[in-house]
Amino acid sequence: MKRIYFQAGPTTLPKEVMEQAKEEWDDFQGTGLNIMEHSHRGKHYEDIHEQAKSRMRLLLDIPDTHDVLFLQGGASLQFAMIPMNLISQGKTAKYVLTGSWSEKAFKEAKRIGSSEAVITGKDSEYRTLPKMDYVPSDSDAYLHITSNNTIYGTQWQDLNTFTHPTLIADMSSDIMSKPFSVSNYALIYAGAQKNLGPSGVTAIIIRKDLLQDHENVPSILSYAVHAKNKSLYNTPPVYSIYLLNLVLDWVDRSGGVAEMEVRNKKKADVIYNAIDRSNGFYNGYATPESRSLMNVTFTLGNSDLEKQFIKESEENGIYGLKGHRSVGGFRASIYNAVPQESCESLAEFMDHFQEKYGK
Amino acid sequence: MKRIYFQAGPTTLPKEVMEQAKEEWDDFQGTGLNIMEHSHRGKHYEDIHEQAKSRMRLLLDIPDTHDVLFLQGGASLQFAMIPMNLISQGKTAKYVLTGSWSEKAFKEAKRIGSSEAVITGKDSEYRTLPKMDYVPSDSDAYLHITSNNTIYGTQWQDLNTFTHPTLIADMSSDIMSKPFSVSNYALIYAGAQKNLGPSGVTAIIIRKDLLQDHENVPSILSYAVHAKNKSLYNTPPVYSIYLLNLVLDWVDRSGGVAEMEVRNKKKADVIYNAIDRSNGFYNGYATPESRSLMNVTFTLGNSDLEKQFIKESEENGIYGLKGHRSVGGFRASIYNAVPQESCESLAEFMDHFQEKYGK
Repeated sequence: MKRIYFQAGPTTLPKEVMEQAKEEWDDFQGTGLNIMEHSHRGKHYEDIHEQAKSRMRLLLDIPDTHDVLFLQGGASLQFAMIPMNLISQGKTAKYVLTGSWSEKAFKEAKRIGSSEAVITGKDSEYRTLPKMDYVPSDSDAYLHITSNNTIYGTQWQDLNTFTHPTLIADMSSDIMSKPFSVSNYALIYAGAQKNLGPSGVTAIIIRKDLLQDHENVPSILSYAVHAKNKSLYNTPPVYSIYLLNLVLDWVDRSGGVAEMEVRNKKKADVIYNAIDRSNGFYNGYATPESRSLMNVTFTLGNSDLEKQFIKESEENGIYGLKGHRSVGGFRASIYNAVPQESCESLAEFMDHFQEKYGK
Repeated sequence: MKRIYFQAGPTTLPKEVMEQAKEEWDDFQGTGLNIMEHSHRGKHYEDIHEQAKSRMRLLLDIPDTHDVLFLQGGASLQFAMIPMNLISQGKTAKYVLTGSWSEKAFKEAKRIGSSEAVITGKDSEYRTLPKMDYVPSDSDAYLHITSNNTIYGTQWQDLNTFTHPTLIADMSSDIMSKPFSVSNYALIYAGAQKNLGPSGVTAIIIRKDLLQDHENVPSILSYAVHAKNKSLYNTPPVYSIYLLNLVLDWVDRSGGVAEMEVRNKKKADVIYNAIDRSNGFYNGYATPESRSLMNVTFTLGNSDLEKQFIKESEENGIYGLKGHRSVGGFRASIYNAVPQESCESLAEFMDHFQEKYGK
């Protein structure tokens, strides 16, 4: 039986990417080595490194005002690097809380410098994204948002509406899933393991005026140092960037970010429709106006059936549906690489399960 | 023509490891996915994660007093994490300078806290390891050494002779190459990309009394946080750790670290002998008593022949010999995965080249 996966990340990569990587496994461009066995200072890897950056630029239409970096450490390291580099004397970092990840980002910022939560969606148990009515102040170091909230299954619907001179977004779980205007943002970061590749690399898009040296920031944690060294200050995660480059190529050949959005909407619709037509047999966790195209979260009206739902889904070859422990229920993560057919199979299973138990 | 490589890292992995990884590429244990597509919270990856730790423990005979961590960011991130976590009020970090990497480690420590270089080999242009006569002081935060110096080709010959209550070693380029007593060390760190696997993961061995919470250290940079979370505080570099685990298995099946030392001595001997019998046609950069078993550095008596040496070596299928720009000449990096035959082919080529040009 074919298995299909809806994992929250790390998760499935596009089939074509995995095939190409397998083909190049023992002999990258006639060298007799895998690309991961090549020096990061050699021409073979450097070409990939530059190509990955160019593809990021092309796909997201990144203006010349911004630099692209590939770092290690995931979003969690960015939670520290951002305040370390960007909270200067007399300024306060402002955070918008929309779920566990923005809470974590805020918590880390507080360890490092003056930081304040200015908007929160906690009252709604993070089911609804709050009204974004924050008015920028001269004393703001920056304003930090999380574009998609994997655990609660909410997502800011339009990334172009926020206005802050130093807007920062954690886009780990929805970068490359839909077009938006990069120029609205001072800094964007994304751990690769949802939409960009395997774990082990983080993509950063940073406005060049933020690339400033700081005497007390360790070199390895300085955006300026990494930018100056074109993300080769230290040995990069060669293989993760190689795969990220192949994923970007796949997005490009598939029709780019606009096409990803078309596909993602169609995929999400299939599952949300199964929830909505169930008359309360399934309940969406996120309120409809805040629903994510990346993570569909839902519970069962009769929670006694939860174990049975997981059991039977796995019997049908469907894996990775268990929701995060803080929300319970189920979560179908449908990042770019998840095909339409997988979503249809899930919706079909949901209908059958309801027919069977929904008396 | 078969190509052989002597790269300084990232570099070749054991052939058997690459074969196994290829075999498991599209279907890890019947799941229909590559291991990198699995959740880091799932059983499949967790087994690998724990196995890799156990194998580290077994191969290096790590006592229960020490923990094993797998982090991202390479040795360069350790240059920052060590002083951030371990220089406390009133203490001074002490550094032994034996080359570029220890200089970098020291430079980063100075940004963070009170730090002092107490021994240096710079007078010898880092050709010779200095006399290790430092007497520990109560005000030492720690004493930091670099066990092998890739650029200069020097290596501390016996890792068991140093005595300091808080001894820290960067073993990035020779961990797993010979046995030593872990209990002499408070902290050992090693970027994987020489002897342990591909780039993207760093192994840390840390004495448990150093695992202390620090209010001002960001969570992602705290050893205590990573230890508490068994190196799963954030998404680990899944595929790098999977390959590291296979490399450790390969070391084990090959006869362990003691056998690695036997092989490495034999390999290095072949090339050092070619240098020594050349009567000055080749000159070793490191003085004989400080020679590294991992990086053999040498120059040509007649430096006009350098370009020709590289050209003809590549015509003979030998790659990666160019020395670091700060030393010039040549460097043959012969980490664990480089086979004896490669070293013999290089020595043979060196002899032929001398016959041809050494009039």
